[in-house]
Amino acid sequence: MATQSQPVVTAFDWVPEFAKGLVRDLRVRWAFEELGQPYAVQKFGAATPRPENYVDWQPFEQVPAFRDGDVELFETGAILLYIAEKHDALLPENEQARWRAIAWLFAGLNSVEPSCTRYFAYSVFNADKDWSAGAKEAVEPLVRQKLKRVSDALGDKDWLAGEFSIADIMMVTVLNSLKNTGFVAEFPNLAAYHARGTARPAYQRALQAQLADFDAPAPAGRG
Amino acid sequence: MATQSQPVVTAFDWVPEFAKGLVRDLRVRWAFEELGQPYAVQKFGAATPRPENYVDWQPFEQVPAFRDGDVELFETGAILLYIAEKHDALLPENEQARWRAIAWLFAGLNSVEPSCTRYFAYSVFNADKDWSAGAKEAVEPLVRQKLKRVSDALGDKDWLAGEFSIADIMMVTVLNSLKNTGFVAEFPNLAAYHARGTARPAYQRALQAQLADFDAPAPAGRG
Repeated sequence: MATQSQPVVTAFDWVPEFAKGLVRDLRVRWAFEELGQPYAVQKFGAATPRPENYVDWQPFEQVPAFRDGDVELFETGAILLYIAEKHDALLPENEQARWRAIAWLFAGLNSVEPSCTRYFAYSVFNADKDWSAGAKEAVEPLVRQKLKRVSDALGDKDWLAGEFSIADIMMVTVLNSLKNTGFVAEFPNLAAYHARGTARPAYQRALQAQLADFDAPAPAGRG
Repeated sequence: MATQSQPVVTAFDWVPEFAKGLVRDLRVRWAFEELGQPYAVQKFGAATPRPENYVDWQPFEQVPAFRDGDVELFETGAILLYIAEKHDALLPENEQARWRAIAWLFAGLNSVEPSCTRYFAYSVFNADKDWSAGAKEAVEPLVRQKLKRVSDALGDKDWLAGEFSIADIMMVTVLNSLKNTGFVAEFPNLAAYHARGTARPAYQRALQAQLADFDAPAPAGRG
């Protein structure tokens, strides 16, 4: 059960089938599972209301929001960085490698994810629109271009910054958003990287915990 | 002139008219101008070739890439964070406020910019396509929703995290991408915030330096 001293992450208590495994609290759960750090989940959505004044905590009213003692924050990139700094883990010690990992953390969110989100928006949310086929066709080369850049930079390394880091938590979960497409499979080293990431026991525990929270929509702590 | 000890930022020596003021090295120049830190510009593009092996430095082959001594990095979010940490400036000292600013740094890049980029892609790059009007119309509510969230969170504050920070460098330059639209003007406090940011002498110096580099396409140092 959650205790006062555990960090708190917010999550939905229900999502539609297509969103399972894609909700972003997975990133935070994965980081904590890598560290063996217990955390509490504050759920809301279909069955439970949002916390009062949630918008002050998460200005975009999305999940996750995060609290650790007196520090409240939002944005998974910021939360992962906070966790890495606080635990002095999941980032390389060498200064260049550390900043390389942080650069990749941002790259996942700003250079790769937006194209994936656009593709997702056209193929899932707007699939019935008369303009979506054209928009989808136009963004496909962009998705491929971004994946090729990541694939080239990764080369034969296991992880983006050498050792496993928050950059990989970010990039692997960004690639998750292409799960029903063949894009990642076009780049064998990227497909192997994604498989390597999702095969980590900590990822599996985080995913199972997230999915279990969808199945049991009651106020719950976890850790 | 540039010296060995100055940090280096890469920039284009020419861009089309619509991109003037939008190239992302502006963010890095602005941070340095706020600090009074001289920096060197390594230009390439229309008149000069990219540095050899540029892709190893900037995996997406965009600008800016950044070097400070032994540390090379990419992604403007990471570069701004590096500069703030190194100079112990442009981030609040209070821990909660500091992380709030970092959260907003990420929010500019991941919660706000992608919708703006989509709007830009439809109205500038694909304006002639038969699907772009429909795609543009579909993304307009998303742009407004994101701006409203920023506007609500900003309230009557001058800056996102209280004092001026790298979060504002990011958000103001993200809002720049909507410059030929009426979106920002729909939110008076956001319009005032944008005007307040771009009126800063350091912003003006950074912008003029960037524009001057487009006008004088020769290898040059600056600082």
